[in-house]
Formats: sequence, structure tokens, C-alpha cells
Amino acid sequence: MAENTHNFYMPKTNLVGVGAIKDLPDEIKHLKLKKVLIVTDKNIISLGYVEMVERVLKSLFISYDIFDGVIHSNPTVSFVEDGLKYFPNKLNVLARDYDYLISIGGGTNHDCAKAIATVATNGGSITDYEGWKKITKPMIPVICINTTSGSGAEVTMFAVITDNSRKVKMLMGSPNMMPIMSVNDPMFMASMPKELTAGVGFDVITQAIESFLCTEASPITDGLALHALKIAIEYLPRAYENGNDLEAREKMMFASMMAGMTLNNAGLGYVHSMAHQLGGFYNEYHGNYDAILLPFVLEYNAVSIPDERMIKIAEAMHIKADKKSQALDKIIASLLKMRYDFKMPDGLSEMGIQEKDIQQMSQNALKDLTALVNPRQGTVEDIIDLFKAAM
Amino acid sequence: MAENTHNFYMPKTNLVGVGAIKDLPDEIKHLKLKKVLIVTDKNIISLGYVEMVERVLKSLFISYDIFDGVIHSNPTVSFVEDGLKYFPNKLNVLARDYDYLISIGGGTNHDCAKAIATVATNGGSITDYEGWKKITKPMIPVICINTTSGSGAEVTMFAVITDNSRKVKMLMGSPNMMPIMSVNDPMFMASMPKELTAGVGFDVITQAIESFLCTEASPITDGLALHALKIAIEYLPRAYENGNDLEAREKMMFASMMAGMTLNNAGLGYVHSMAHQLGGFYNEYHGNYDAILLPFVLEYNAVSIPDERMIKIAEAMHIKADKKSQALDKIIASLLKMRYDFKMPDGLSEMGIQEKDIQQMSQNALKDLTALVNPRQGTVEDIIDLFKAAM
Ligand SMILES: [Fe+2]
Ligand SMILES: [Fe+2]
Repeated sequence: MAENTHNFYMPKTNLVGVGAIKDLPDEIKHLKLKKVLIVTDKNIISLGYVEMVERVLKSLFISYDIFDGVIHSNPTVSFVEDGLKYFPNKLNVLARDYDYLISIGGGTNHDCAKAIATVATNGGSITDYEGWKKITKPMIPVICINTTSGSGAEVTMFAVITDNSRKVKMLMGSPNMMPIMSVNDPMFMASMPKELTAGVGFDVITQAIESFLCTEASPITDGLALHALKIAIEYLPRAYENGNDLEAREKMMFASMMAGMTLNNAGLGYVHSMAHQLGGFYNEYHGNYDAILLPFVLEYNAVSIPDERMIKIAEAMHIKADKKSQALDKIIASLLKMRYDFKMPDGLSEMGIQEKDIQQMSQNALKDLTALVNPRQGTVEDIIDLFKAAM
Repeated sequence: MAENTHNFYMPKTNLVGVGAIKDLPDEIKHLKLKKVLIVTDKNIISLGYVEMVERVLKSLFISYDIFDGVIHSNPTVSFVEDGLKYFPNKLNVLARDYDYLISIGGGTNHDCAKAIATVATNGGSITDYEGWKKITKPMIPVICINTTSGSGAEVTMFAVITDNSRKVKMLMGSPNMMPIMSVNDPMFMASMPKELTAGVGFDVITQAIESFLCTEASPITDGLALHALKIAIEYLPRAYENGNDLEAREKMMFASMMAGMTLNNAGLGYVHSMAHQLGGFYNEYHGNYDAILLPFVLEYNAVSIPDERMIKIAEAMHIKADKKSQALDKIIASLLKMRYDFKMPDGLSEMGIQEKDIQQMSQNALKDLTALVNPRQGTVEDIIDLFKAAM
């Protein structure tokens, strides 16, 4: 038998659903924690979510500090360095500053916490760990309390940190950067504005489709990806239309978590390789880039996608199609209609992207970890063409 | 929002696929293990699988002992007690006997290891922990190296241990009994005899169907259950026909793992409540009981199953049906045909089950943890009728 592994990583404990946060004390009381660092931002504090966690820690006599220096949604190297200032004794096991980190927020805050926890045990700078499995020692254990249904970062071993000096969104991943616990409780998910609902929802759809099509997909990730896609197609329009539709919001939370489990263990593809670079150069909802790029990348990849896989995506989207070409056309039409209904931007130039940056972004995109598992392997010229088509 | 949680537990690390065992050293080298206890049986030793793990431990300078006292496939309280003799210092943290347990084998060995690891830290006897969440302290961490594709026990927080004195198969479960790592490498899966392939395969199918229909199902477990069922229906006949069909064997390994993830987080139902009791009174492949009971329990439950859910099961089995009643009939016909093709027993009396035991088994079945989440809640008389119908 030729070697062919599909390792599956996951936080051991995932508290999910309305009221899940109430299980937190029971889950952490055996950990014998003395001191934890909360990683969050000022908005999350003002919403009162941090206080809810503080109450839990106080009841268990666990002391804590709060780092609220995640100041916008594209976390940079400097946020990580600011967080590390809380660790004067890092690498000194006997004077271990914090037993655990608890991140409260969306994917930005989780990524930031993972990066801080990684440098705290591995030393150096977060820029040393760009790529796959560069992190050789386990990070300080991280618990991710999620407040959006979007990135899936609370269940992944990846972090995206922007290196402003190079204008690169660095993607890093390692089993040593896997959170130990995730919490997805709709009580922590403030009613998101329509734009954000559409953006993170499109991210879920893109993540499900890209990881279903990537070269490392396995039966486990297939099952999760197709079901996440089915749910998102059914409930995203409802969540968009009415932010108070709690059933729709809860279903999107599940879809997001499942897409996170999927991308974590299978991977993504060129949509994300390219979207990461746009995120490094500009500042927009990540999901809006996905929404513009996905149809072009799907069409580009089609030649390398088995007929049966394309048809399965169509099925999950409630689209009837017998042939690959027909499935592809209908999938793209359906995505475009959704993008239109959600009043999302229609092209990259509309979002302020400039031609002059395309060359550099294309070179960086091919170096992004997610590019390695795209079903069709292309050249810099291919990526340039895709960027231009999407303008 | 009414509280409604669907916590999801999973080993943090799952090595999966051909050659996955080679990742074991890399995964355990940071654990700083000094001494581990291997829990296995003489057959697994003679197959050479234990030696492969011993080589890994030696290369990392980890010392170990081997408990090979799992002597048949319905693990009893006495196996657990024999294993505990290796822990003279149990409960004494400073003289901690073993840092980790590694079980090598099928579900029996994993269950036995979990039970030993639980009593080693919680004290008392394993009979103290029957039921849900009776285990208050985390067990010693357990790594499950799986050699069958059947029970899914390598990824579950449950164990089934027979109390011979009461003829009860005790089911116990707790997040504190969750393995920390699983390994599913077809290299460790010796070519199973046809009978066992059919038995464990039917167990996978039953687990997928029961957990999809139980009251605690969530979108995550739905996605996994339906896909596991789809794969098992497609590949089990091939794996049965030709034990050397490696693709089929690998696919069944994935289906088994997914069904394990599903039942672990959603639950099961009356088929398992009843099969557990049969396992306590008699000694047969667990999957053979499933195969006989499933059609009767499905028919009994039908009134409480939403139409749409029954039709989704049919779809996953490649059965076309518009109505619930039609779906049910075709599902049962398909299960019976498969049972016939696999030359499995046709009724309980054929398997030596005696009328006189039915009363007692029925009472015990309703106390089984799995009974709590069955979609229709019945009386002892209902269970008696089901047992009698299945004779
Ligand atoms: Fe994304
Ligand atoms: Fe079973």
C-alpha cells in the first residue's frame, strides 16, 4: 500500500449551542490553572462578553490578565509583539507566566492568541514560523471563545498574521498550534450587521467548496464540507434577511464550525491563497474577496476536478445537473445571484484594488500554504490572469 | 433562547491512513513520557503489532510494561481489575505509575484501557462509574491504536464493560474518559475474516442510522452520519466479497471512525440498548445483534421520526423514496438483503438466545444510557415485544 495519510486534528473539547458557555467551569476546573491571559479587543469588552468569562475565572480562583490590543481585523506582527510583553519570563518553565490563554472574539483574536502562545514557548519572532509545521514545540494551551460564525479559527491549527513590512499575510500551521478547547455559544454572538453576515457567510461557503475540492480531502472532511455547504445555502439568506432569526444564526454557527474542521484537515485552494494577499495589501472583509474570486477560480480549476465531485457540490447547493459543465455553470450562476442579493461588491477594482499590486500579490499567492493543495497547479501568470479577470 | 447544547468531543490528534503510524513518534516526543502501560491481547502481540509500537517507545527512551490480559471480546470487570494490578501506587501523584496508556487492538482493548485508566485516577471499582458523567476526574491519558474498523471506540468517551455477577453490560461515558489520540492505520488491520467484516460493518451502519435518528443529533453529527452510511453501503459489500480490496477496507475504516465521532456526540438508541444486554448474557459479534434488531427498532421508532429524516437515510442508502412509509419499507428490505448476502443469522433464537432471559434483558435495556436518546420512549413491554419479534 502506498502511504496516504489524512490525519485529523480537532480541539478535544468543543462546547456548542445556546448555553454552552455554562459548561466552561466544569471543563476547566480540573486543569489546575493558576493564571491565564485573556486575548481580546475593546469592542468585545464593551459588549460584556469578557466579563462573563472573568466571572467564571473568579469563581474558580484563577487569576488573569487581559490583553485587549487586537485593534483591527487584520492582525499584524505588532499585535503579537504587544501581547508578548505580558510574558517577561517566557521560556522559563519555572516562572511560567500563564498556564493557558483564552481568546474571546472572532478569528482575528483567536489567530492572535495562537501566535502569542506559540512564540511564548518557541521563542524568536512570529515571522519565523510562516509555513507548515515550522512550529516545533506545543504552544501554551489556548481556549477559543468564539463570537462570530465565520472563520472557523476556533477549531483550526492555522493563523494568519500580517507582516506589514513585507505586505504579506503570513499563513502558518502546525498541530502544535491547535487550540485545546473551543466555545461556540450564540449567546456570545452579537447580532452582526448585514454586511458582516454576508461576508462571513460567503467565507463559510468558499471554505466548504475549496476544501471539498482540494487534493487532501478525505471521506471525513467530505462529509463535513458537503453538509456545511448544504446548511449555509439554506440558512445564509435567512440569516442575512433577518439577523434575529435565531434558528438561522445557530445553523450558520454549525456550518462555520464544520467548515473550520474541514479546512483544518484538508486545506483550501487558490481563492484563499489570493484572498490572503488582498488582505495583506488592503483592508476589507475577507469574505468579500472570497465572493469575487470563487467563480473565477472554480472555472480555472474545473479541468482538474473529477465530474462526480463537481456534481456533488451542485447537489449540496440544491442544483440539479448531470454533467460537470452544466453543474459548473449553474453553481457559478447561483453564487453570483447570492452575491447580488446580498449587495456585495462585484469586482476587485470596486473595492479599491490597484493593478500595480497584482504582480507582487500573485507571486506571494503561490507561496501561500493553501496554494499547495489547489486541485490545479498553476503559474504566476495564471494567478495574474485570475486577479485581472476579477478586477 | 432556550438552552440547547451539542458539545462535540474528539481526540485532539487522530492519525489516519496508510502509514499513519509513522507519525506517532513525532506526536508523542513532546509529551515527555517516562513510562507507559500497553493494554492489549495475546493475538495482537502474535500479529507483531505490539512490537511495532515497542520500537517507537524504545527509540524515544520511554519505558513500558505490557498488560495482555484482554482475553475475549466482551471485556469484564475482572480484566479491568487485572490491569489495575499494574498500578500499586495509584492515586499517589508523586509515585505516578504510568504517564499514559496505549491500547492496541479493537474496541474491546480500547474500552478496557479506558476503564483501567479511569479507576487508576478516580479510585474505587469500575462498577462505580456506570452511566453518564459519573467519572469526575480525567483518566490517565490514553492513546488508542486501532486494529479493526468497527466499534469506533478509539474516538469515543464511552466504554462497555460486562459485570458478570449481574449479567449486565455496563455502559459508561464521560468527557473525562476521552482518549487523547487515535491511530487508524490499515497496516495494523489484519485481513479480517468474512464473518467479522460483516459484523463490524453492520455495526457501522447501525451506529450511523441510530445516531442520525436520536434526539441529540446536531448538524455536525448529521453530516458525519449520513456520509458514513453512504460509504458503508457502497464499500461494505466489496470489503466482504474480497478482504484484500484495500480501497474498500480503507473506506470502511473511515466510515467506522466517522460513525464513532457521531455516536460519541449524539448517542445511539434502542438497537444498542438491547444489543448491549444480549452481549451481557451471551457471546456473539455485537454487529450480528445489531443486524437482527435494527429493522424491528426502525419500524417501532418510525412514528417518532420526521418524514424528512427517514427520507435522508434512504437517500444515503441510494434508495429513492418520496414518502416516509415507502422509505422505511425500502430501507428495511435493503438491510434484510444485505444481511442475507452476508450469510448473517436471521433471528435471535438461531443465535441461542432464550425466552427466559428476555424479561431481565428488557429491564436492563431501558436503563442503558443509549435508551435515553432513542427517538421514541417506550415501556418494558415495548422492549419485550421487540425482543420477541426478533427471535
Ligand atoms: Fe476563509
Ligand atoms: Fe455498535
